[in-house]
Amino acid sequence: MESHLQIQQVITGPEARMMIRQGNWRKPTAGLVPGFVQANLVVLPRELAYDFLLFAQRNPKPCPVIEVTDTGSPEPKLSAPGADLRTDIPRYRIYQDGKLAQEVTDLLGVWRPDLVAFLLGCSFSFETALLRAGVPVRHIEEGKNVPMFISSIACAPAGAFAGPLVLTMRPIPAPLVTKTVQVSGRFPAVHGAPVQVGDPAAIGIRDLGKPDFGDPVTIRPGEVPVFWACGVTPQAVAMQSKPPLMITHAPGHMFITDLRDESLAAY
Amino acid sequence: MESHLQIQQVITGPEARMMIRQGNWRKPTAGLVPGFVQANLVVLPRELAYDFLLFAQRNPKPCPVIEVTDTGSPEPKLSAPGADLRTDIPRYRIYQDGKLAQEVTDLLGVWRPDLVAFLLGCSFSFETALLRAGVPVRHIEEGKNVPMFISSIACAPAGAFAGPLVLTMRPIPAPLVTKTVQVSGRFPAVHGAPVQVGDPAAIGIRDLGKPDFGDPVTIRPGEVPVFWACGVTPQAVAMQSKPPLMITHAPGHMFITDLRDESLAAY
Repeated sequence: MESHLQIQQVITGPEARMMIRQGNWRKPTAGLVPGFVQANLVVLPRELAYDFLLFAQRNPKPCPVIEVTDTGSPEPKLSAPGADLRTDIPRYRIYQDGKLAQEVTDLLGVWRPDLVAFLLGCSFSFETALLRAGVPVRHIEEGKNVPMFISSIACAPAGAFAGPLVLTMRPIPAPLVTKTVQVSGRFPAVHGAPVQVGDPAAIGIRDLGKPDFGDPVTIRPGEVPVFWACGVTPQAVAMQSKPPLMITHAPGHMFITDLRDESLAAY
Repeated sequence: MESHLQIQQVITGPEARMMIRQGNWRKPTAGLVPGFVQANLVVLPRELAYDFLLFAQRNPKPCPVIEVTDTGSPEPKLSAPGADLRTDIPRYRIYQDGKLAQEVTDLLGVWRPDLVAFLLGCSFSFETALLRAGVPVRHIEEGKNVPMFISSIACAPAGAFAGPLVLTMRPIPAPLVTKTVQVSGRFPAVHGAPVQVGDPAAIGIRDLGKPDFGDPVTIRPGEVPVFWACGVTPQAVAMQSKPPLMITHAPGHMFITDLRDESLAAY
């Protein structure tokens, strides 16, 4: 693990984005530039931006806002100055009236002066922190996508946006649950501390073997299911309102910022 | 101090608000209902609300958002369900085109369906925590208003809103600076950790004896000036944009929520 990290860290955030911009990286970004914050992308017309920002303010666990661009600007000036959100993500999804219309590798043809881009924290940062603290992350061990569940917990609604909280699940050995809460809790900007520990039935999750999205993972004897707020929540909720246009990253194909994971630590 | 707290804690947040609503408390709210979060109020028309919320997102230290009401609703459903922001604050200020027009004791005659109310964290919560941790708070000891300084640090602008960061200063005995950072840092929702410790000149503050707002306080030998982001910042910045209508609480006359100080602790 350590030698792998050392090799990868030769690439910086700006270098990785340039590689992506030039079309030389069309794959998922997990593991690319370890130690740097990667972000979910949600692009909406300005007329929906207030409701979406208010939804995020009311639901900071699923919707941790890293940055919101100025209306019409594709540059995230605070988290990655000089970057261009139209070209610096390997793959995008364009939704029209709430339905997936196409997948593209840049937004140069579809960007408009009324668009606002939201960058939202993603769990890669706290997973790196968990691994470094000696906490196993099962879906990474098994080479799978994290299992995600639509819970019975309602998000606080805001204007056009309402819906259930989507949770990720990671099975954690019981003696490591405290450490897991502490380590992930240091990073509220990337979903932070778990929403719940140990009682899936109480939050409307009937079968841990049948996630609503992603893949099931092995739960070993002595392990406790731990649930975190998931970055799919804001996308799913935004889609419910069927905006005329919404653009997101393609799953796993994130935006790489210049922020280091540790710069987001709350303490 | 302790016996004083015990007497006061007989009153709950809802009871204090009812007393204010009925006109039986027209004084500043410091010390009323200790242990409960008090909040700054900023009311703006919906057309300016997105820029203001974005400004707060980009400047979380001076603008920690506790809650934003639904457009037209004077009820902060999440932090004080049942409360009415038109009547439950002892004294309000109404600004027209950026100028103070009048001070009133309720907003029943001026509330409009396009108004949005922002509740922003205030330093009372972290001052209570400092006192409980044995850190002296000089302006409270001296019965003064906290000294405030317009710094040379620029806030990150957002739409119509831009301006300098306003800081409060508290002199802290050098051996207690670490504890001060730790204790206040637990409360990012009420300005959190200091912005700077010990070098006023570096942030454009020439004379600690001449604050821009509030009162000067005694700085004793062996004490270090410690600077925190101030809740005056968002009001001052909002006023600069000269909105046709902006309503705030009168200084010191805050809104009392149902949230306990400790519920805001980040860790």
